[in-house]
Amino acid sequence: MASQGKLFCSEQKFYGPHSEKIYTRGYLHPSIQVGMRRIQLSKSYTIDGMEFSSIPMYDTSGPYSDPAATIDLQKGLECIRDQWQTERPDTEPSTLSQHKPMHGRTPLKARDGGSVTQMHYARKGVVTPEMEYAAIRENQMLEEWISRAGIAGKKHQPVTPELVRDEVARGRAIIPANINHPEVEPMVIGRNFRVKINANIGNSALGSSIEEEVEKAIWACRWGADTVMDLSTGSNIHQTREWILRNSPVPIGTVPIYQALEKVDGIAEELTWEMYRDTLLEQAEQGVDYFTIHAGVLQEYLLPAAKRMTGIVSRGGAILARWCKKHNRENFLYTHFDEICEILTSYDIAISIGDGLRPGSIADANDTAQFGELKTLGELTLRAWERDVQVMIEGPGHVPMNLVAENMTKQLELCHEAPFYTLGPLVTDIGAGYDHMNSAIGGTLLASLGCAMLCYVTPKEHLGLPNKDDVREGVLVHKLAAHAADVAKGHPAAWLRDMLMSSARYEFAWEDQFNLTLDPVYAKRIHQESRAAKNDTNGLKDSFCTMCGPDFCSMKKSREL
Amino acid sequence: MASQGKLFCSEQKFYGPHSEKIYTRGYLHPSIQVGMRRIQLSKSYTIDGMEFSSIPMYDTSGPYSDPAATIDLQKGLECIRDQWQTERPDTEPSTLSQHKPMHGRTPLKARDGGSVTQMHYARKGVVTPEMEYAAIRENQMLEEWISRAGIAGKKHQPVTPELVRDEVARGRAIIPANINHPEVEPMVIGRNFRVKINANIGNSALGSSIEEEVEKAIWACRWGADTVMDLSTGSNIHQTREWILRNSPVPIGTVPIYQALEKVDGIAEELTWEMYRDTLLEQAEQGVDYFTIHAGVLQEYLLPAAKRMTGIVSRGGAILARWCKKHNRENFLYTHFDEICEILTSYDIAISIGDGLRPGSIADANDTAQFGELKTLGELTLRAWERDVQVMIEGPGHVPMNLVAENMTKQLELCHEAPFYTLGPLVTDIGAGYDHMNSAIGGTLLASLGCAMLCYVTPKEHLGLPNKDDVREGVLVHKLAAHAADVAKGHPAAWLRDMLMSSARYEFAWEDQFNLTLDPVYAKRIHQESRAAKNDTNGLKDSFCTMCGPDFCSMKKSREL
Repeated sequence: MASQGKLFCSEQKFYGPHSEKIYTRGYLHPSIQVGMRRIQLSKSYTIDGMEFSSIPMYDTSGPYSDPAATIDLQKGLECIRDQWQTERPDTEPSTLSQHKPMHGRTPLKARDGGSVTQMHYARKGVVTPEMEYAAIRENQMLEEWISRAGIAGKKHQPVTPELVRDEVARGRAIIPANINHPEVEPMVIGRNFRVKINANIGNSALGSSIEEEVEKAIWACRWGADTVMDLSTGSNIHQTREWILRNSPVPIGTVPIYQALEKVDGIAEELTWEMYRDTLLEQAEQGVDYFTIHAGVLQEYLLPAAKRMTGIVSRGGAILARWCKKHNRENFLYTHFDEICEILTSYDIAISIGDGLRPGSIADANDTAQFGELKTLGELTLRAWERDVQVMIEGPGHVPMNLVAENMTKQLELCHEAPFYTLGPLVTDIGAGYDHMNSAIGGTLLASLGCAMLCYVTPKEHLGLPNKDDVREGVLVHKLAAHAADVAKGHPAAWLRDMLMSSARYEFAWEDQFNLTLDPVYAKRIHQESRAAKNDTNGLKDSFCTMCGPDFCSMKKSREL
Repeated sequence: MASQGKLFCSEQKFYGPHSEKIYTRGYLHPSIQVGMRRIQLSKSYTIDGMEFSSIPMYDTSGPYSDPAATIDLQKGLECIRDQWQTERPDTEPSTLSQHKPMHGRTPLKARDGGSVTQMHYARKGVVTPEMEYAAIRENQMLEEWISRAGIAGKKHQPVTPELVRDEVARGRAIIPANINHPEVEPMVIGRNFRVKINANIGNSALGSSIEEEVEKAIWACRWGADTVMDLSTGSNIHQTREWILRNSPVPIGTVPIYQALEKVDGIAEELTWEMYRDTLLEQAEQGVDYFTIHAGVLQEYLLPAAKRMTGIVSRGGAILARWCKKHNRENFLYTHFDEICEILTSYDIAISIGDGLRPGSIADANDTAQFGELKTLGELTLRAWERDVQVMIEGPGHVPMNLVAENMTKQLELCHEAPFYTLGPLVTDIGAGYDHMNSAIGGTLLASLGCAMLCYVTPKEHLGLPNKDDVREGVLVHKLAAHAADVAKGHPAAWLRDMLMSSARYEFAWEDQFNLTLDPVYAKRIHQESRAAKNDTNGLKDSFCTMCGPDFCSMKKSREL
């Protein structure tokens, strides 16, 4: 396995030089400590009457950015939720499983077939530590600013643990946090919270090593991924997932049908419900936080899908379509949906209902197959909610810009406001090499209209498997999209960051400009290389720069007025 | 100066291996020959009942991609418009200028103070060679397909020279083509045509060499820039522009106030109308095709602009604001606007009315200063149209996603449907390092709503001056945005390209997939590197790929059904 030194580095390098890890405690649950990244600014800025000489940022990097944390990849991260779960004695050690996790604990499940989901507690009026943790993160310690800021004339309130509870109770938000993933730092996905992004990792039969995948997962968190999906296929699926789960501070999602298919040597028609159920249980006891389950791929949609330009482009969708066709029976994930939900309730695994029939080309966008399946996803949502299972709905795909908004409208209408989690959409089919940007274009629009989480796409989409650099590009571009969507939605903390950046720009505070970007180390390097290439030795103190020179600096001229 | 070998390469490399240069002749004007790039496909695809084994593409690369062309940068490109202009004997040699162009011709101007603008002819009902040339390009030799295709149930017609004439006559489109730029391949900018993109180049006082700028200009055309703006400041402005004009197949724009400011050693208050007029004439006789002129920066808008978070961020705007303030007089570009228009009519230079007060931060978007100036730009549009001057309107800037659409609505309403030419908009202030994507996000939305041309932004925006690699990234990302906007608008040729790509993808025709991307050489290299890194020796013939492996290929499974 990977050596520690290779997989992560010191706090300074992990964040960049002007950030530090800080923690803030819970109020309802004093045992929780929420980590954030505080950017130290070089000077004080007054924004709408408030002074800022630093700004705390939402932070997904977990203990990796804490110089005081001891990291041992063989042991995994500290189990921060252990203490919280003692407050909730409705779980018991599982007797089902042979699974021995790296952290040495026996897997838990709900006691006496009960429910331990966040939705279950939310509906009973209980504010869990997970809810408070997520609420604290959302505010970035900016409660005073949030209450005062009037973005576009609209007043705001900080996120309260009670708001999180209420949104989870009504199904408009989820907190993916399997009771067997004690290392996870809880977060909330829903359209009344910050837009989140997911990074996919995972090897394939022709692919990479466990070490590579763990490294990608950790770096994805550093760059800002809110969740990570392990889409591994091929050998070592179980072990890869174990390493990722034990070392991941963010929720981990999977598509269990991939592992099930490995068990039948890739022959879709040999899949059975029993084998799939066992796979769910195996992954549940390991600690997977959400499952993508393509339960909406029904026989009636296969004919319209077959008439498409690109048929079925979801891997899960294609596997299940094949199974249905061979057996001439309805999708077993649909027929066994209630049993699936029972398993999910026992471990608190959220279901991400997969869009197996998402359009794989512009020509197939918003068609009968896609919207037919979406209606079924809405029906399944209600069935999951009956059992207090947290639900999100997966979305497209390839959709031209003029049809993006309709995806949001239909999803809200048909899926009862369950959070929408989409891949892009890509707004053209010809973007190969630039599909991360293609996805960010459609994604920004969709998220600004209410999509809760964007699944990243990397520059390798349609061309190959992403390496670490591709993961970085994919994450950063989708962070940009998510942030821009937050700005469009009038999110006060997002606006504050933009306003600090613009103030720093107007005052030629270069270091602050770098530090407020998505990747300070990168922005500074680009700037310095550009100056060096032009023999520009003005340094960072002058009130103009290489781009325009002193006579043509609009900011300089504008300030002088 | 640059050696030829360094500045361009053979046709094969310039286009990629599966494209060739082809020409098609005019019908009304048989002397015109329009160059296109034809992509040879590896097989035949049937799209909506029509067979395609190749597809001609809109091509901005001019003679550089023609293996039969002789390129000599010291002499400049062939003067293709010479022959056309003999058909229009309303010009005469200018006696004004000392300027001796590299091609050795004496500069022309309109005879007897007349008008030689495309709008002038259009309004008289004359279809010029430039109009026919632009119309032919727009159709990409796909007239039959365009007439048959019913994109989203909507019927289409090929672009006719008469349509171009009509759109130019009513001011809804422009053809920037100075009579002194005989090398230019005419193109049309307007919302009923393909969305265009502009690439900015130019050195600064601290900047680069002529050679670098010419190289950037040529490569920008190769990657797809429809026009190029030379924003040089510092020394050698005239000479740099001469090299660029003589070697440019695309229209060249400038901001003449930059050169005027150099003539007064950067002291804005010393600018005078006379000096500015002389600068216009100098550039007019060199052959600049469009001028950005910040004539809408009025004194009444300076107070609202001063109250902004980032004041005035347009260089031209800041220079003129300073001049107004020092002299306590109205902007001389506004007071002398009619005289400016007289010059423009004599050479057929389009005016790009500059948005000197564009917002430089999210907080300043859509404010009083911006929309006040936009109203003035609309008034100036009518004054320019009175003299048959072709007009486009420049737009923002930094605008959050939720306010982007309002920019289009207001521009259409206030500026009488003159083409909108915008920079982005950038949808957040924190994108430094990723501002090309930031711009493409806002730009795709705006263009899908009717913006006619997008000005590119490079990854160096806010950080430094772009080098050749940055130009490439900027151009390609904005090509993606422009194409996605064309797709959103239901453009039949754009849809055909997407449908061919998706067909090739569904049929595992890898070479065709590469060749239909924005940069075939790049896409293929990425794919091959990715395969090599995984020791994947399947080559390009297998019906699956590294991404998923054989068992998890949705396309493979979907086809098998």
